[in-house]
Amino acid sequence: MPTSFRHGASPASPNDVRRRFLLGAGAAASAAWLREGAAATPGAIEHPVPEDPSKVPGVPLEDTSYGARSQFETEVRTRYGKTSTALSSWTFTPLQNSMGIVTPSGLHFERSHAGTAIVDPARHFLFLHGLVQRARKWSMPDLRRFPSVSRLLFIECSGNGLTEWSKPTLNTVQETHGLTSTSEWTGVPLSTLLNEAGVNPEARWVLAEGADGAAMTRSIPIDKAMRDCIVAWGQNGEALRPEQGYPLRLIVPGYEGNMHIKWLRRLQLADSAFMTREETSKYTDLLPDGKARQFTFEMEAKSVITSPSGGMTLPGAGFHEITGLAWSGRGTITRVDVSVDGGRSWREATLQQPVLPICHARFRLPWQWDGREAILQSRCTDDTGYVQPTIGQLVAVRGLNGPVGSVYHLNGIQSWKVASDGKVSNVHHY
Amino acid sequence: MPTSFRHGASPASPNDVRRRFLLGAGAAASAAWLREGAAATPGAIEHPVPEDPSKVPGVPLEDTSYGARSQFETEVRTRYGKTSTALSSWTFTPLQNSMGIVTPSGLHFERSHAGTAIVDPARHFLFLHGLVQRARKWSMPDLRRFPSVSRLLFIECSGNGLTEWSKPTLNTVQETHGLTSTSEWTGVPLSTLLNEAGVNPEARWVLAEGADGAAMTRSIPIDKAMRDCIVAWGQNGEALRPEQGYPLRLIVPGYEGNMHIKWLRRLQLADSAFMTREETSKYTDLLPDGKARQFTFEMEAKSVITSPSGGMTLPGAGFHEITGLAWSGRGTITRVDVSVDGGRSWREATLQQPVLPICHARFRLPWQWDGREAILQSRCTDDTGYVQPTIGQLVAVRGLNGPVGSVYHLNGIQSWKVASDGKVSNVHHY
Repeated sequence: MPTSFRHGASPASPNDVRRRFLLGAGAAASAAWLREGAAATPGAIEHPVPEDPSKVPGVPLEDTSYGARSQFETEVRTRYGKTSTALSSWTFTPLQNSMGIVTPSGLHFERSHAGTAIVDPARHFLFLHGLVQRARKWSMPDLRRFPSVSRLLFIECSGNGLTEWSKPTLNTVQETHGLTSTSEWTGVPLSTLLNEAGVNPEARWVLAEGADGAAMTRSIPIDKAMRDCIVAWGQNGEALRPEQGYPLRLIVPGYEGNMHIKWLRRLQLADSAFMTREETSKYTDLLPDGKARQFTFEMEAKSVITSPSGGMTLPGAGFHEITGLAWSGRGTITRVDVSVDGGRSWREATLQQPVLPICHARFRLPWQWDGREAILQSRCTDDTGYVQPTIGQLVAVRGLNGPVGSVYHLNGIQSWKVASDGKVSNVHHY
Repeated sequence: MPTSFRHGASPASPNDVRRRFLLGAGAAASAAWLREGAAATPGAIEHPVPEDPSKVPGVPLEDTSYGARSQFETEVRTRYGKTSTALSSWTFTPLQNSMGIVTPSGLHFERSHAGTAIVDPARHFLFLHGLVQRARKWSMPDLRRFPSVSRLLFIECSGNGLTEWSKPTLNTVQETHGLTSTSEWTGVPLSTLLNEAGVNPEARWVLAEGADGAAMTRSIPIDKAMRDCIVAWGQNGEALRPEQGYPLRLIVPGYEGNMHIKWLRRLQLADSAFMTREETSKYTDLLPDGKARQFTFEMEAKSVITSPSGGMTLPGAGFHEITGLAWSGRGTITRVDVSVDGGRSWREATLQQPVLPICHARFRLPWQWDGREAILQSRCTDDTGYVQPTIGQLVAVRGLNGPVGSVYHLNGIQSWKVASDGKVSNVHHY
């Protein structure tokens, strides 16, 4: 059988990395590598590779350890489409190698407006004030005394795919769709905190503010705050990662990513929205008539084929599994259809169980490729009955007013062209 | 509010670690620390901690990154009850701090018989032979061409809790129950590979062999192999961790941990079991009459309260959430009851959704502690109707023939005593 195409988009082959490591030997080489600051794989130790691992002892188990991934694994999240500064920037999840529904915490996408804030949890407090009976201040240990919940939820940046409105611009699914990830989040329901403080009847909005250099702020409707928001300290069974808001993040299930305020330090209740920068001049959708749509909270149903996808090369005709992810900020994915002929015909894909509300769902479809040019597409439906539109249908409503189109909330059907030589590329086809 | 008790069992407080790091400054200090080989937190970078993080820029986003946990987080898996060698050894998941159902890959328990094998995936092959129509050999890329599946599944070592048969021996839930973890595993169904090779009608067992120095081997019944086993390359959305069998592991859902052969290199079909060391002199259950029970595959239903648990100190009377994990190798947990009075009365706990078959389930119960001595217990039921027994009920059947009791397959009810000073300890109470 031919070689894999799944790793086609990796930035360096395992052999490249090994060569780099093995210039020195053993511990010295790995220390040198660590000092060089190759943050791509922090903590990965370069062990000698035996010819036959069953003929030698393995690596002894440590008295205390926090594991690292294999020295042969190199996939990283990448800062594509270089932003003007590395402080207000993003990195994209390598969806082309994604499996199942959980995103490894080390590969969860990042979007920050002032870099990753470093917050000492022992000195971090959450303040709740405004239109409440009793203003409150909680330490991290205080918060962890409350009853908690855990939920597997996706978060998607509303700018995911913003380069793709007018024409296919970037190459890989990491670049076109990598600003969405799924984790199991754990924390206290925001409703519990609001009830502790006592919400005044005239309160309609909750301001959430981060402790980062951008002091990120967004207004959350009070009904959403009471319904299912979580003040989270946990991600995938351990503390939040720093770039996800350690030690505290507001989770706003299904709403656009930047409302999930990281490094959460303050909540304020008021009778109207706060009209912060991130909900007025930014994160609004400029329409063809020059008016802007504000408060487009829910991320609409969206799907993408993660493999085969742009930048890969199919090793030949024959069997290939088509697989991808589908998600909806409004509920549960009920169906994904896949086309291999640019939307002329569709087949229903299998949804991998469990399919959870407001969570990535994994779909799969077996495909016998005949070796001729093919256009692969996926189209999802959620339990509100909403069907993922084409990019053309979106443009008809939203226009192309931004510098690269309509900027936010692109959830159109993605097309991947498989050329007869097996090369997969990003195309618009509708 | 008083300080948290959740971190009571951590090996070092965040402040200890910070002091150690901050002897030097910034990068120099962290490089020194990395060279010292404190594998507890590989790759964690010690960033300067600002007095007010909102007044300074954060850490710039990297062009390529694979994230690390916060410099303030220190929990590790630990090699308890020191085995005679660090090659045939184990490390335990710190369940006392667990949240939700997913175990972070870096904290997944380890049990290896010859250390962690270092296997180059480019030189790794899986062989399938014996009673098949066509012997087969697959490379890793070959295997990844097959249709794949993903499942959230627990794996539990059958030796989990082996010190606890005769009397309460170890202190924390990490030590008494930490040989169980849950990951989302991805790979090809073993049935697909068997069908590719063509199973001869007389085949009844499949031998699975690892590429490690122990050449770990176990016999799997053919019906189980065809039903739901997975030849897995993925764990929690990325490649298997080295200590979990990178690049390939056999997943045998619900069966005792050591059947999930790591570094899988060979499958052989035969008409009888292979009677390997690990299913004859080891991993059998010696009964009171001197006979041994063999092939005790399924891990029976079991639960444990992870917080409060041994080694913690409750900061005072009042509200505390009781939370823990329940799982069954035979199916789905349907109910968990919790007692705070040593089993005299029980209350049904809430099961956090999703509750999946052969997967950790998270349960929670609010508790108002009156400040007097209490014995906390949990008791689960699975969808076969099986109810978790007391340790006394198990001992009545199984005896105490091993050096510390009956060694394998202890799934009895765990008791934690909360003293009036808030100290939580491991007790037997039945």
